[in-house]
Amino acid sequence: MTVRKITIADAAFEPSPGQDADIQQGNVIDQRHGGPVTIGYGRYGANQRIDEHIKVDDIMLILEGQITVSSDAGTETAGPGEIIYMPKGSSLSIGAGAEGAVTAYVTYPHWQEAIDG
Amino acid sequence: MTVRKITIADAAFEPSPGQDADIQQGNVIDQRHGGPVTIGYGRYGANQRIDEHIKVDDIMLILEGQITVSSDAGTETAGPGEIIYMPKGSSLSIGAGAEGAVTAYVTYPHWQEAIDG
Repeated sequence: MTVRKITIADAAFEPSPGQDADIQQGNVIDQRHGGPVTIGYGRYGANQRIDEHIKVDDIMLILEGQITVSSDAGTETAGPGEIIYMPKGSSLSIGAGAEGAVTAYVTYPHWQEAIDG
Repeated sequence: MTVRKITIADAAFEPSPGQDADIQQGNVIDQRHGGPVTIGYGRYGANQRIDEHIKVDDIMLILEGQITVSSDAGTETAGPGEIIYMPKGSSLSIGAGAEGAVTAYVTYPHWQEAIDG
């Protein structure tokens, strides 16, 4: 691996697995590239929500709109430039507001391998 | 660890080690918290630059301004919403443009432990 610039145009968006909301994510860097982390972008339609038990550490930075995450720790809403840190093992609900949302994410380790494993 | 919102107001900025440019970073999540990744924010003064050999995988997302990273792989300039992925072992020069820059970063593993180790 070498130093690489990543933009949202590099993301091949696809529906998030296990749900039928209008929520898509596109990995740009993942297990195919040999490093320890997955890097990608996410898109949430207006008022769309997903419930998840996450099997990796997931760091989500909001680029546009607002994201609300509810978990045992309470409910947090984040906007542009803010981050939601979701440690491995968290059970949570991730939802966008009326304007939808665009996010960037980093997971350690690779979330697709954790789901398959 | 529980789900947590992180904002730039949570970052206690300090000068980046080993350099005397106007470049500061502030970890919010790191080895003190027991997880695998460090999360924080960076601030670069106008036209400031740092040369580094990085010992961790470092994912930098630009929030304001522009960052140019030069390495063996060439030179990349990124702006708001774009990411520079710097794999472990990269030798590089990171510089801000005339308007300075604000960034968010995630490193795996913890960069402060890698420097001390």
